[in-house]
Amino acid sequence: MATLEEKLQIIRRGSDELLVEAELTERLRSGEPLRVKAGFDPTAPDLHLGHTVLINKLRQLQELGNHVLFLIGDFTGMIGDPTGKNATRPPLTREEVALNARSYTDQVFKILDRDRTEVVFNSTWMDRLGAADMVKLAATHTVARMLERDDFSKRYTNNQPIAIHEFLYPLVQGYDSVALRADMELGGTDQKFNLLMGRELQKHYGQKPQVILTMPLLEGLDGVNKMSKSLGNYVGINEDPNEIFGKLMSVSDQLMWRYIDLLSFASLATIRGWKQQVAEGGNPRDIKVAFAQEIVERFHGRDAAQAALADFEARFRQGGTPANMPEVNVPAAGVALIIPHVLKQAGLVASTSEGLRLIAQGGVKLNGEKVSDKSLKLAPGEQVVLQVGKRKFARVTIT
Amino acid sequence: MATLEEKLQIIRRGSDELLVEAELTERLRSGEPLRVKAGFDPTAPDLHLGHTVLINKLRQLQELGNHVLFLIGDFTGMIGDPTGKNATRPPLTREEVALNARSYTDQVFKILDRDRTEVVFNSTWMDRLGAADMVKLAATHTVARMLERDDFSKRYTNNQPIAIHEFLYPLVQGYDSVALRADMELGGTDQKFNLLMGRELQKHYGQKPQVILTMPLLEGLDGVNKMSKSLGNYVGINEDPNEIFGKLMSVSDQLMWRYIDLLSFASLATIRGWKQQVAEGGNPRDIKVAFAQEIVERFHGRDAAQAALADFEARFRQGGTPANMPEVNVPAAGVALIIPHVLKQAGLVASTSEGLRLIAQGGVKLNGEKVSDKSLKLAPGEQVVLQVGKRKFARVTIT
Repeated sequence: MATLEEKLQIIRRGSDELLVEAELTERLRSGEPLRVKAGFDPTAPDLHLGHTVLINKLRQLQELGNHVLFLIGDFTGMIGDPTGKNATRPPLTREEVALNARSYTDQVFKILDRDRTEVVFNSTWMDRLGAADMVKLAATHTVARMLERDDFSKRYTNNQPIAIHEFLYPLVQGYDSVALRADMELGGTDQKFNLLMGRELQKHYGQKPQVILTMPLLEGLDGVNKMSKSLGNYVGINEDPNEIFGKLMSVSDQLMWRYIDLLSFASLATIRGWKQQVAEGGNPRDIKVAFAQEIVERFHGRDAAQAALADFEARFRQGGTPANMPEVNVPAAGVALIIPHVLKQAGLVASTSEGLRLIAQGGVKLNGEKVSDKSLKLAPGEQVVLQVGKRKFARVTIT
Repeated sequence: MATLEEKLQIIRRGSDELLVEAELTERLRSGEPLRVKAGFDPTAPDLHLGHTVLINKLRQLQELGNHVLFLIGDFTGMIGDPTGKNATRPPLTREEVALNARSYTDQVFKILDRDRTEVVFNSTWMDRLGAADMVKLAATHTVARMLERDDFSKRYTNNQPIAIHEFLYPLVQGYDSVALRADMELGGTDQKFNLLMGRELQKHYGQKPQVILTMPLLEGLDGVNKMSKSLGNYVGINEDPNEIFGKLMSVSDQLMWRYIDLLSFASLATIRGWKQQVAEGGNPRDIKVAFAQEIVERFHGRDAAQAALADFEARFRQGGTPANMPEVNVPAAGVALIIPHVLKQAGLVASTSEGLRLIAQGGVKLNGEKVSDKSLKLAPGEQVVLQVGKRKFARVTIT
């Protein structure tokens, strides 16, 4: 059993802000499992490591004996974008919500403990509220208070429209905490305002206010921007194990430590040991391998992690080619078989001009040899391994 | 049958703003009765002439063949003040709403035509709306648009709190127009913003937008402030006929014309005749008498109007005392029978100091004689008529 101070240390690890620590201490002292709430969009999820920062923290709280309320915000999801302006947010049906929720939990139970997780839907209580209840909920806060929220304040100042229902959503999120009698709520740093709404509304409804814990937003592989699918700087948890491994090996040493702090389940003592090791001249690459192994194993199992390491070493350390690579047939008929065209036909580059540029930069290899002749021609029946950049391979047969 | 231009003239008479006149013309041309909406608070009503400005206009619209939707805003009334800060606005029960509505209609049917009036309650449709519908309604407008409303804008600028539900109420009022498929809505000039919401929401819901007509706020007897019960400058329609008559006779000649424009049902031609008469040296007092007679008759019948005139003439023209005055017994035991105390006991002044002040100002009469001796004493068994100011009388017996 962890001591109170150890528990607090685990909870604080990697977090951004804990409010109010004295209240958390008091709740932990009671020995009762805390009801820990975290809210998720009901849209089709495709989780990446950025999402898992918060889920990891939930897992740690579960390991300390607490109960996780995994809240799917389907009430607003089933409304969609009520202004109708955002075509990418159509109203979800109840069936779609159920499907998405299943997909969500399939992913998060790679981290969370099923026995200590309760999946809840806020439509359960929100659908029972009438227009009059919504009016009463709206009456608990002022326009000025709502305009304190960073994004609202910026948009208002810049004369960008804020639809009135946007003021209702933080109240709905806060009311969820009331309905769930949450002891604690977790969210990204960008959620602080909404988490505070939960505290305020719980007080309003005569409950003890929840403790709030914000987690930082994880940087993407570029080390600069927030990890996001649309920026392409992400590591998806359902990606190919070799891909995950390779992506994690590609991050800078500095970003590696950040990832380890927020994503590894290694104890704080272990991590201190690693840092010591590197400080004394150890190769950070060894730490990176251990970390990448841990992450791949978490989502794809031990065997996949071993295979990914082997694959990676074959490719990059020993200069070899990966065991599994796409086999591509390029038909000889009607195609100029010079190398940029073949790269394009094999799907290794988007266009022949990209192929030409990469050849000029020295980024293309044929059977492990750098290609310098951009007019190099292949012959029908030939079979070669083509490589573009560090990780794109194809075994090409001219047919 | 009135011509189109005559109808427009009747509708415009005394009004502040008509939007959009071309739309009204088009609707009138169709020959279909218009559905004319006006909203009223569901609190216990005690109507004064200020309220009747709008009701008179509804009556005129009825006389032109249109249908009045007399809307009781009980949805918000049953919510009360959801912030709980305003103790004078407790939530009303359905029974209280029904009672108040009955009291309202008892009063307004002295003006409106029952057969062309439909009393409707917005709880009928609002109680069926869920929280999600309220979110969708809120999504139709922006925060910036709502802050354009005069009172919101002022309060926001002055850092006075605006609770978020206050942004929902204009939307509810606007949605009422949708639910009622109103062709036209009437309101005070202070309601223009809310009436426009009705237009906007009707367009949003695919309806033709209602025409809006705003009526000015009637000045009170002081000729300066808006008529209101709390300011004491009002003429209540259920007041004693003599009191109504006396109050109307007390207004300035200038205010008289304003009242006639907004309250009299005399034709525009008749009113032009009266103005002509005064311009040619006629006594405005004669016009005032005719007008006061009209108003008393409207609310209390012809006999009461005649009696009020007779009473008034007896009091003020012939210097006599009114036929009906309160009889008050003042017990001699334990009370100093000097005149300021007796005035207070008789309920003619609020305090002995007020009595002393009025005596000093020459505003107190005993049996028609001005009282100048503030130590004047009455004796047990004595019976006198006491008068304070122009219209307060009591027949006092010292017992």
